[in-house]
Amino acid sequence: MKSNNFGIAIHGGAGTISKSSMTSEKEKAYSDALALALDEGYNALENGASSLDAVEIAVSHLEDSPLFNAGKGSVYNAQGKHEMDASIMDGSNLEGGAVAAVELVKNPIRLARKVLHHSDHILLIGEGASIFAKQHQTVFENEAYFHDDFRYAQWQKIKDSDSFQLDHSDKPKQYLGTVGAVALDPNGNLAAATSTGGMTNKKYGRVGDSPIIGAGTYANNKTCAVSCTGSGEYLMRCMTAYDISALMEYQGLTLAEAGEKAIKETLLKLGGDGGVVSIDYQGNIAMPFNCDGMYRASRNQDHRLIKIYK
Amino acid sequence: MKSNNFGIAIHGGAGTISKSSMTSEKEKAYSDALALALDEGYNALENGASSLDAVEIAVSHLEDSPLFNAGKGSVYNAQGKHEMDASIMDGSNLEGGAVAAVELVKNPIRLARKVLHHSDHILLIGEGASIFAKQHQTVFENEAYFHDDFRYAQWQKIKDSDSFQLDHSDKPKQYLGTVGAVALDPNGNLAAATSTGGMTNKKYGRVGDSPIIGAGTYANNKTCAVSCTGSGEYLMRCMTAYDISALMEYQGLTLAEAGEKAIKETLLKLGGDGGVVSIDYQGNIAMPFNCDGMYRASRNQDHRLIKIYK
Repeated sequence: MKSNNFGIAIHGGAGTISKSSMTSEKEKAYSDALALALDEGYNALENGASSLDAVEIAVSHLEDSPLFNAGKGSVYNAQGKHEMDASIMDGSNLEGGAVAAVELVKNPIRLARKVLHHSDHILLIGEGASIFAKQHQTVFENEAYFHDDFRYAQWQKIKDSDSFQLDHSDKPKQYLGTVGAVALDPNGNLAAATSTGGMTNKKYGRVGDSPIIGAGTYANNKTCAVSCTGSGEYLMRCMTAYDISALMEYQGLTLAEAGEKAIKETLLKLGGDGGVVSIDYQGNIAMPFNCDGMYRASRNQDHRLIKIYK
Repeated sequence: MKSNNFGIAIHGGAGTISKSSMTSEKEKAYSDALALALDEGYNALENGASSLDAVEIAVSHLEDSPLFNAGKGSVYNAQGKHEMDASIMDGSNLEGGAVAAVELVKNPIRLARKVLHHSDHILLIGEGASIFAKQHQTVFENEAYFHDDFRYAQWQKIKDSDSFQLDHSDKPKQYLGTVGAVALDPNGNLAAATSTGGMTNKKYGRVGDSPIIGAGTYANNKTCAVSCTGSGEYLMRCMTAYDISALMEYQGLTLAEAGEKAIKETLLKLGGDGGVVSIDYQGNIAMPFNCDGMYRASRNQDHRLIKIYK
């Protein structure tokens, strides 16, 4: 069925994002980057692209920005490398594709999309994922592309310690860097996508929620599409993305009610920080979070919104 | 609260397990191996061990048997190696631990348990997981320990092709090799554990449902503990382990009803084969599957059951 309620919502991470630590230049840079991703995704939908195309386009733009912890802006792991994770899900057939711990891939979300279409598997990791990537015309970049003075300095400061941090902040675990998008297209199909560069100084091949279908990303035409950002381990334990869908399907909650419960009750009670962008099968959009701020934006025929703080 | 309804259920994989392809010797070998794991787990519970201990003990025994596709019995991947995945979850606090694509670890489930207790992370993969393992007194074995003539021959037959298979069967995707256990202890705590050696000739660092909290393994004292076996990609798309819990919590279904719906409706409708062992907070046990057979066993104060076929 054709629908005029198509729309898109995106995020660039959540956490302690205080107005006092922002300059107006920085704020503008973030807003501009969000606007570009949002509008490119929305324009695609308007021109008849599928929701799967729209979320891939939006997330690719966020990956190409140095401001967000994904793709080009990925943080340094304990080996001084950039290990990235991404996942994408098609709500029309519940198919998913995901990669974890891939290096030098320009747009991990595009690789996740290739896994969705060209592999019997859902989640490919590490070197194996790189071999798959090379067999499927994936764009690679060199180390220099991913270098960033600020992120390098972040890493240098803690690299000889056991600590790790979830992104920009000097306080560990404060800014939870991930990017993501959800969309409903005019054909009534939902899709969700999430991508991350992980945690500064992360060790041991840690994999968080972003490449896990059901934890960081979920889409189902019956209910909604969800992309999460926040403390990954908590989102994994709560299965937050799928949980919002389950609350709608099994308990009859609206998207907004389901998101409130999943983020402000279940996740918070366990001690997890974070938020989601979500859109339901009718085009309703909800972007709940339980921390100070979340880089977020949404657009449909009735509104265009770009926000950072509460 | 103390409970006399403690119990345990285990599985050794599901799929096309036909009586015609079995000899009575083979049947006895499988039954004996299941009985050993079941009774060791049950005895531990009876002696006051936690459900977390009981599922670790039971799964370790299954990993030590060459009959099941996990630990010692793991199949060969495309590189002729054994790449193993495992996860464990504590229903009392929703904490989880998991490893994927680890090599030469004698008992991946014990390593997953160490991740649960000694890491801020939930899922560690590949070489990073091995480094963590070495720092935490993990028992390693050499390649010879994991060698098995039958599994080697399976691999030789298909290693130069693009096909892979999910275990013993000559027909691809027929026997879905995984082991797992769920338990309720006398203190009312639930736990679940799952371990696998993956698929013969698997490529690209594929990760299935077994190390994914919510997909292959889930435990929550409010509802139930679940360990899945079957076509991993489908279980991941359905979030089957968590789905059973969500159906109980959000829709008020019993454990048996939730399992029937998740396995015989949701999973089957999508095209997935498989089954689960599950136990709820009251000690009820359910072991639904939608294929020909599932190696399974359960025990509490009232019964002791070991079965293979429907």
